[in-house]
Amino acid sequence: MARPAPRAVKRVTSIGGGPIGGGWTAYFLARGYDVVSYLHDMDEERAFRAIVDTAWISLTALGLGEGASRDRLRLTSDLRDAVSEAEFVQESGPEILTVKQELYRQLGEMVADDIVIASSTSGLTMSEIQSQCTTPGRTVVGHPFNPPYLLALVEIVGGAATSEAAVEWAGEFYQAAGKHPLVLNREIPGFIATRLQEALWREALHMVANGEATPQQIDAALIHGPGPRLALMGQCMAFHVACGEGGMATNLDQFGPALKLPWTRLEAPELTSELRDAMVDGCNDMAGERRFEELAAERDRGIVAILNAIGQVRPNSSGG
Amino acid sequence: MARPAPRAVKRVTSIGGGPIGGGWTAYFLARGYDVVSYLHDMDEERAFRAIVDTAWISLTALGLGEGASRDRLRLTSDLRDAVSEAEFVQESGPEILTVKQELYRQLGEMVADDIVIASSTSGLTMSEIQSQCTTPGRTVVGHPFNPPYLLALVEIVGGAATSEAAVEWAGEFYQAAGKHPLVLNREIPGFIATRLQEALWREALHMVANGEATPQQIDAALIHGPGPRLALMGQCMAFHVACGEGGMATNLDQFGPALKLPWTRLEAPELTSELRDAMVDGCNDMAGERRFEELAAERDRGIVAILNAIGQVRPNSSGG
Repeated sequence: MARPAPRAVKRVTSIGGGPIGGGWTAYFLARGYDVVSYLHDMDEERAFRAIVDTAWISLTALGLGEGASRDRLRLTSDLRDAVSEAEFVQESGPEILTVKQELYRQLGEMVADDIVIASSTSGLTMSEIQSQCTTPGRTVVGHPFNPPYLLALVEIVGGAATSEAAVEWAGEFYQAAGKHPLVLNREIPGFIATRLQEALWREALHMVANGEATPQQIDAALIHGPGPRLALMGQCMAFHVACGEGGMATNLDQFGPALKLPWTRLEAPELTSELRDAMVDGCNDMAGERRFEELAAERDRGIVAILNAIGQVRPNSSGG
Repeated sequence: MARPAPRAVKRVTSIGGGPIGGGWTAYFLARGYDVVSYLHDMDEERAFRAIVDTAWISLTALGLGEGASRDRLRLTSDLRDAVSEAEFVQESGPEILTVKQELYRQLGEMVADDIVIASSTSGLTMSEIQSQCTTPGRTVVGHPFNPPYLLALVEIVGGAATSEAAVEWAGEFYQAAGKHPLVLNREIPGFIATRLQEALWREALHMVANGEATPQQIDAALIHGPGPRLALMGQCMAFHVACGEGGMATNLDQFGPALKLPWTRLEAPELTSELRDAMVDGCNDMAGERRFEELAAERDRGIVAILNAIGQVRPNSSGG
């Protein structure tokens, strides 16, 4: 079977009976695909359907795609059967390298040659995973963010033996499927989002370990501080806009030295002119023609909408 | 003048003509206070009123308090006049230690003895700021998050010479004013939210410096990944809920070793049993009677509301 055009895909196979495999299954169903889901053991069926049904509530509230139906799900514990007609495979098996290597060895033979196989792995690299696979060119990482049926991010990167065409195809496919694909420049452990989250998490653990904050204080600080802003504006643009006309250049030139303060246990990078320019150029690119007043106004409208939305869901927005 | 009950405060003085002072001014006006704002020079008036007017749009969209009006703002460049009738002082002057020390020396004499003076400082400690003040017992940090008229967090902590009563009063006042006060256990540079943000920021700079990610990729990863979740659930509870029935205990017992992976440049803390228990106990406390299914359902309802809200504000939610 030849690789279909990314927008022409109709049949998806999801591998794995856990929350990530179940979340992907629900998501693809909600976008109107036919989905075959592979479970290691059919005893997992009830728990798996419960995951799909839970996700379905939220997916319905967000709006289902044309023809979306849970009736278009087929379950099987026969791997070869699961992938026999797949036009795309999303693998969310156990996060154990040897298990994934053996799985990709099998998938490499069972899945039609041109069909892209994407792994939900959050901690392994595709170079490692694909090492036993005889057709590694079409294997990529397609890493979602939890919960995978709600958060749009999918980080995409190939391994050493992956073809560029497969990476590009995966980006276009996820885009067509309504996700926000983020193709990485190169293979790095933890990808981008998880690394950022992990840096924050380690600092949180340090603070708790040192008696400087409790988990309750940490969560309250995030929910009532940067959280609502990060839902619609990343940290780079948040600083860019907060510094007014001078933008990121002012931020780095003025606050750069503060990076050297021992505020976090993470050692600050050297603020070279190359790094400064990369940050400034990136923010200017994102700003485009919009002046900072427009950007700030957009930010504020978004935060207002988010705060009002949270207020309706949880009248007492007391965190936790 | 005796310190009024936190809920009885009617007149607030805001010091500083920049975005933080202007943001606080707008916020207090929107909550129905009489506000006197001190500007270093009345030439700043036009820019200052523009800040207030911009904030007013968002504050109106969120809902104004009873009697809220911009007509209840008085501007002055006479510091003694500005604080003469103040029942609370929010100081947002320049972030320069010597400037703040001199300002608190003056305020310590000008402001009636019992009235609480709170600093918006993000990078200095109150112990340093209050060192020239003859009445330091009522001086505290009251650190907002940008934009201060929208984000609810205010981190509160005293200096070495601050009375516990003043810290407690400040917490109750901000609560009455509609903010989310977070009283810190002790004075630490950067407080809690900024430290967490700083850890994330340093990792972002490292990734750009190493060519692993662009600012555009970093912002997209945050907006479409953890952002919408962090708007209503902190990182501790996000991990607690993601691990199902086992919660934070499972997270640390299972993923603890992953902390040692070189994913970020921040060295991981030793995962002692004390740290483990502090994390687990904190999450159990936040969960209360709610089982993880309820918590996950609440999270999902919130994220759906946030995504729908963002979708309405920005139909093409393409980040940046």
